[in-house]
Amino acid sequence: MSGADVGRALWAAIERRDWAAVEALLDPALVVHWPQSGERFDRAGYLRVNREYPGDWHVRVVQALDAGEQVVTEVEVDLDGRTDRAVSFLHLCAGRVIALRELWAEPFAAPAWRRGWSLPPT
Amino acid sequence: MSGADVGRALWAAIERRDWAAVEALLDPALVVHWPQSGERFDRAGYLRVNREYPGDWHVRVVQALDAGEQVVTEVEVDLDGRTDRAVSFLHLCAGRVIALRELWAEPFAAPAWRRGWSLPPT
Repeated sequence: MSGADVGRALWAAIERRDWAAVEALLDPALVVHWPQSGERFDRAGYLRVNREYPGDWHVRVVQALDAGEQVVTEVEVDLDGRTDRAVSFLHLCAGRVIALRELWAEPFAAPAWRRGWSLPPT
Repeated sequence: MSGADVGRALWAAIERRDWAAVEALLDPALVVHWPQSGERFDRAGYLRVNREYPGDWHVRVVQALDAGEQVVTEVEVDLDGRTDRAVSFLHLCAGRVIALRELWAEPFAAPAWRRGWSLPPT
């Protein structure tokens, strides 16, 4: 498996709620960092957050890229009629994720000051 | 210049408000896509949004990665005492950006349901 394949496999296992498969893709020394909130999680904490994340969410991988020592994934997460997006930067060790830096992007309305400068919707 | 160098140069020129240098790094056929709002911009629109973005914002590149056919940059943008983050996916043509997909991530507070599961602040 390429690094990008590991990234895709991780999100697919999360979508399946297959927590044993998720854990098997994570190094025991994993540290997850969500810089927007300052939260950091170890493997057990990250598994718990995913397992107990409220709602009937569904994840799709938009792209997964091998980027030198890192893997970058972009996903869309549907929940309650809304689509959030996440970009994850993964470091791997022996095919398992050992570091995960993740940014979460919420939908927003185009602000008034720049309306009219964008291209027509496709 | 590597693709990652082009990404760094683009952000550095934006931070300097050097719009001629920004324009020189952009292919005339550039399309920018901000999927969170659905906004798309051509080169002129993207330059205008950057030039007229309100406030005394400052951008730092956190990382810039060569990822096959794409370049991925992560930046922090300080504005009014707050730090937002952006991840940009760039496609280049002859050393200039021809496609730019960008996700914007705002700070958030850790929700109550998962407090206590994260690692102590470092």
